[in-house]
Amino acid sequence: MSKATFAPLHTNDVATWHSATDVIVVGFGGAGACAAIEASDAGAKVLLIDAASAPGGSTALSSAEIYLGGGTRVQKACGYDDSVEAMYDYLLTSNGPQADAEKVRRYCEHAVEHFVWLVAQGVPFKDSELKARAVMATTDDGLLYTGSEKAWPYRDHIPSAPRGHNLQVWGDNGGPMFMKIMAEAIAKRDIEVSLETRALRLIIDDHQRVVGLLIRRDMEEHCIRAERGVVLCAGGFAMNKAMLEKYAPELLRCSMPIGNPGDNGGGIQMAMAVGASAINMHEGFVSLPFYPPASLTYGVLINCHGQRFINEDAYHGRVGSYLLRQDPGPVYFILSVEDYGDYEKVAYLGAPVVATGETLEELLDALPMPRDAVAQTLHSYNRHAALGHDPMFHKQPDWLKPLQAPLVALDCTPGHGAYMPYFTLGGLETSPDGDVVNTLGELIVGLYAAGRTACGVPRRGDGYASGISVGDATMSGRFAGRAAANNKEKE
Amino acid sequence: MSKATFAPLHTNDVATWHSATDVIVVGFGGAGACAAIEASDAGAKVLLIDAASAPGGSTALSSAEIYLGGGTRVQKACGYDDSVEAMYDYLLTSNGPQADAEKVRRYCEHAVEHFVWLVAQGVPFKDSELKARAVMATTDDGLLYTGSEKAWPYRDHIPSAPRGHNLQVWGDNGGPMFMKIMAEAIAKRDIEVSLETRALRLIIDDHQRVVGLLIRRDMEEHCIRAERGVVLCAGGFAMNKAMLEKYAPELLRCSMPIGNPGDNGGGIQMAMAVGASAINMHEGFVSLPFYPPASLTYGVLINCHGQRFINEDAYHGRVGSYLLRQDPGPVYFILSVEDYGDYEKVAYLGAPVVATGETLEELLDALPMPRDAVAQTLHSYNRHAALGHDPMFHKQPDWLKPLQAPLVALDCTPGHGAYMPYFTLGGLETSPDGDVVNTLGELIVGLYAAGRTACGVPRRGDGYASGISVGDATMSGRFAGRAAANNKEKE
Repeated sequence: MSKATFAPLHTNDVATWHSATDVIVVGFGGAGACAAIEASDAGAKVLLIDAASAPGGSTALSSAEIYLGGGTRVQKACGYDDSVEAMYDYLLTSNGPQADAEKVRRYCEHAVEHFVWLVAQGVPFKDSELKARAVMATTDDGLLYTGSEKAWPYRDHIPSAPRGHNLQVWGDNGGPMFMKIMAEAIAKRDIEVSLETRALRLIIDDHQRVVGLLIRRDMEEHCIRAERGVVLCAGGFAMNKAMLEKYAPELLRCSMPIGNPGDNGGGIQMAMAVGASAINMHEGFVSLPFYPPASLTYGVLINCHGQRFINEDAYHGRVGSYLLRQDPGPVYFILSVEDYGDYEKVAYLGAPVVATGETLEELLDALPMPRDAVAQTLHSYNRHAALGHDPMFHKQPDWLKPLQAPLVALDCTPGHGAYMPYFTLGGLETSPDGDVVNTLGELIVGLYAAGRTACGVPRRGDGYASGISVGDATMSGRFAGRAAANNKEKE
Repeated sequence: MSKATFAPLHTNDVATWHSATDVIVVGFGGAGACAAIEASDAGAKVLLIDAASAPGGSTALSSAEIYLGGGTRVQKACGYDDSVEAMYDYLLTSNGPQADAEKVRRYCEHAVEHFVWLVAQGVPFKDSELKARAVMATTDDGLLYTGSEKAWPYRDHIPSAPRGHNLQVWGDNGGPMFMKIMAEAIAKRDIEVSLETRALRLIIDDHQRVVGLLIRRDMEEHCIRAERGVVLCAGGFAMNKAMLEKYAPELLRCSMPIGNPGDNGGGIQMAMAVGASAINMHEGFVSLPFYPPASLTYGVLINCHGQRFINEDAYHGRVGSYLLRQDPGPVYFILSVEDYGDYEKVAYLGAPVVATGETLEELLDALPMPRDAVAQTLHSYNRHAALGHDPMFHKQPDWLKPLQAPLVALDCTPGHGAYMPYFTLGGLETSPDGDVVNTLGELIVGLYAAGRTACGVPRRGDGYASGISVGDATMSGRFAGRAAANNKEKE
């Protein structure tokens, strides 16, 4: 029987150890960078590797918003009185029954400290708020709402505050800037960085402890000893079609996985091959990025039954997740031509116009949904919107006004051209410290994971908020790096 | 580090082998019985164990409807011209993107042969059809519709046929009768049966092959050698709260797990501890058993937004799955008092009456949903039903008539008293033959699984049909038993 790619190597099969270090960090994205810094600061000798030719990982490709709260400097300067409790309530509720209360609690309690730490590494945040509704900030403002905090069903129960922390940089350039700063922080330390270096297999000893890593560099394989531990920060599995088909096939109905090519699930598979438990593997972030222009929020989304199915002022990821669970058939965004505005210039959405109407009646004639149902839906919406109410879906009054003809319909049916990016939210089961847990519930000595290789704070597409993945990756990276550096179990 | 319960035992740690056999089958339910019979008929020496004091497993607790088609004797006698292709299309479509096409294909192609085999074991089926809409047959008729074949979205595309095969016995007594027959078939063969015998750990050799099982019987632990293989037919994990919380937390919103206490996930965990891959772990069967009386099908289900969300003529499991994914808030079944009929006498549902109305307006006043929305929903439903149409949800004309006052509303909100049973549909990844696959995609030599311990044909709650689990369990048990008996890899 041939050994599959990710099967572990046993120390008995190691002919020679090429070199040794204390902690090997796999992946130089946000999680890996933070893990390496903390491990180094805790006194460990660190090797940080990445398969790519340059650092960055998926964090560099993101906007690098960072979801933090409980009273950060920026929140306070912008006049928000956020609390750890409110942040905890929001994250616990929005992550549904699969939320890990202990991880969420820890994340919220460490949010202010993490903000201070990031600033100390050189990450700049301006004490100003972007008030516009945006998928990401393209101004240099430091704070914006990036989740559904002000939207039903959260706004009635949980005090809201903006928690998306945006780097002080113009344009969608937060990710590259963040990773440049992290790379500088790494360079300042005695951390060995090895790019174009692929992690192949974990190396285990007789006690099933992880004691090293088989890597490939310059077309040669080397066994590297890790005296204290291996930290997997190798991303999720959005780029691995076979894993998506096996674990999260619904996500394949979206238009495009986002991340870097290294998000191939290798870290997860390598760990599973030494017994690691993987959880929440069916879940993913799914977006319908319909703003900007924010004016689309005045529109309504209609499913194949002619029904609305969500308050359109919810976060685009919540909207995307809801869209994906509608019955098969057309899903249209209906709005006034006035609110369509500069859609073609600024939109990420790319949903094609499928119908227009000089009057509501004319539009209705052009829609494939049951006519009576759509007519009722739109008339009812208009009638209540004129009074500032949305009794069915509770869209906040700011976004309510009757749909005024002429009208336009955008085709948001999955597969019809609208941009629906996704990435995975399942991963290795870890302790809050980042220790990888096996399927028996035991810690795997010497193995740690962080970022999207682990199943962390963000657990549901419909509860996602921008900045929670980079926030979780960077903070969980720090915890895991520190835990690995302090691992004395093998000594 | 303490060894957790299900960690495998290594042959080096086996002091003495208590006994040896060719094939050990764990679990004396439908899957295990069939596995034992086939392994024995293939010439293997078989030990069949169960933790319970009597045979039966969850199959004996079920109605033991068996989903078969493609032209069985009963189908033909009842005048149905079913085909393998139609059955395949239905099962493939209804199991959605996670369907295993190869397993579905094999299931459909073997359906007639499996029917003949069951009859040969002594399972009686009468050549008659029960035409009533029923969760299970309580007559002795041999055939009934048990899925959503005649309902949208399947009826327009896929030729329908009833495929639920019901044992020739009055009352809901198919399960006990089926397992009695299986036990007799076992007794006729040279199969060693050991009840009150718990499987504790798999025993593996240096090559990670499964070569035996550690069992506990009469308060003593014994190592039993399995020369050809161990077949896990130990049920799903509906009775294991910790596993449900980890893998399928949404199911915990239902009212009651169904199955036997042995459905504790032990088989799945034992296999995962030797590297087995588990898939589809978030999915489950969920029922809202609102018929009988079938007359409730004339009613409509309304969610917290005042909307219908499904064609109410769909299978109760599809309805239950849809119910569970509605936004949090009340879900009511609204129907005429006339159709309420003998609900209190015959219903399994147990949903409490929360409102009544001598007129539709009076009922509307009593509902907590947005009044305008419910009013529109019901008026629109009535208007179209009077014409024999349901343009929004495509309920078939047979079940369409206007809701005539006086009316009644039943509370079907999860947690409010309605009976919502569930069980799990995730399990071990297996080949169509029943070989257990590890997370690297390799077969684990000597390890087999069937029934709900494996992830088989049924993969989605919203695509479930009664009889598919017993059908899959019994057929996959046969395949796995035969594969284990024919395993020569260790010789």
